[in-house]
Amino acid sequence: MTSDALAGVKALTFDVFGTVTNWRASVIAEGERLSAAKGFETDWGSFVDDWRFDGYMGGMRRVRDGELPSMTVDELHRRKLDALLEERGIEGLTEAEVDHFNRIWHRLDPWPDSAAGLDRLRTKFIVSTLSNGNVALLVNMAKHGGLHWDSVLSAELTGAFKPEPQCYERAVEILRLEPQEVMMVAAHQGDLKAAMGVGLRAAFIPRPDELGPDRQSDLTPDPAFDVVADGFLDLADKLGC
Amino acid sequence: MTSDALAGVKALTFDVFGTVTNWRASVIAEGERLSAAKGFETDWGSFVDDWRFDGYMGGMRRVRDGELPSMTVDELHRRKLDALLEERGIEGLTEAEVDHFNRIWHRLDPWPDSAAGLDRLRTKFIVSTLSNGNVALLVNMAKHGGLHWDSVLSAELTGAFKPEPQCYERAVEILRLEPQEVMMVAAHQGDLKAAMGVGLRAAFIPRPDELGPDRQSDLTPDPAFDVVADGFLDLADKLGC
Repeated sequence: MTSDALAGVKALTFDVFGTVTNWRASVIAEGERLSAAKGFETDWGSFVDDWRFDGYMGGMRRVRDGELPSMTVDELHRRKLDALLEERGIEGLTEAEVDHFNRIWHRLDPWPDSAAGLDRLRTKFIVSTLSNGNVALLVNMAKHGGLHWDSVLSAELTGAFKPEPQCYERAVEILRLEPQEVMMVAAHQGDLKAAMGVGLRAAFIPRPDELGPDRQSDLTPDPAFDVVADGFLDLADKLGC
Repeated sequence: MTSDALAGVKALTFDVFGTVTNWRASVIAEGERLSAAKGFETDWGSFVDDWRFDGYMGGMRRVRDGELPSMTVDELHRRKLDALLEERGIEGLTEAEVDHFNRIWHRLDPWPDSAAGLDRLRTKFIVSTLSNGNVALLVNMAKHGGLHWDSVLSAELTGAFKPEPQCYERAVEILRLEPQEVMMVAAHQGDLKAAMGVGLRAAFIPRPDELGPDRQSDLTPDPAFDVVADGFLDLADKLGC
């Protein structure tokens, strides 16, 4: 990225699940606490993967395609959680326990560099979420993880889930900036390419541990990305913070 | 307020203009810098009062009544600023200078207790704006004043200006809380009464200097308010932070 291009960036918008927080390990740890407390066993690795890939990602796709009515990520998570508990024959949880477990997505642990990196980046840029997670989820997650955002933007407010163009476009509009003044920061190349498609800049932060020991996302960066950084502290270095 | 009622409050939503920031003195100081730099004179006290009461408050009322199309506070401010400059025969400002002056509402100085009080309140509560100002204005104001919000909620996101019930109701919904779990914090009794009308709790923070030396709002608190505090540090004391 040239220094001229960098000079124009005023806001960084962050993907959250996977980019800021380590969702898989957090959900597995909470699941293990729950099954120990309640006296049942299940394979938490495949549980969380089903929850994430079918419940969350598949759920958003079904909302986009009109197979499901518009709903928040909290509601998509709960829908899939109920199905998973039934499929796996897990019984005896109270409504309060199921609701609390569903909100594990509000209590995900950040990657070790996330909070300190965001604090450095906030000295120079507007630092905002741009997540498919709903606002309450993002606010609670920030309190849990000690993350400080200047703005909590969400698909709930933009009216469309990423990677629909409207999600990025409406976020830029809410910030009253031009697309090239906003840089999307994500561990997921599809998110970045969709953002670039409507004129945003892109910073790729590979998170090789996101998917656990047996899966790996594509870590080879598209040459079109403006910045590639090894975590948020390296991103702060590269953006001159 | 009983300690039981207090125990249920999870989020504080703040009015911003007047409650968090000293808008009148900030705009007058910026106006005086501008007129000194450009070599003209005007009465900045009456200028800011016209801008505020006719441009902002009157403008929101005209949007509510359908006399004006839906627009943000930035747009309402600019509309009135253009009219004031013409009425007062102030000429020779470039478009960039007028736009920068219009954004003085993004650079208002906080009251001396605001930033420190919010930091204390954030240790125990979700601390959010709930302002008629648009999101970009609120985000820029927070950066300018060193204010840390957990969430930036605005009439721009709720789809209605305060004191319309929808503004408070939608904010509660976005936070995924019940109305009685949210406390509106404001220097303006009408704002608090409207919030209480849809079930929120209310903290009144009189700001006797808000309107300048020649005007005074009603500082005698309605007995129905849950808390009355002398600034945000006193509010933090009273809420046990």
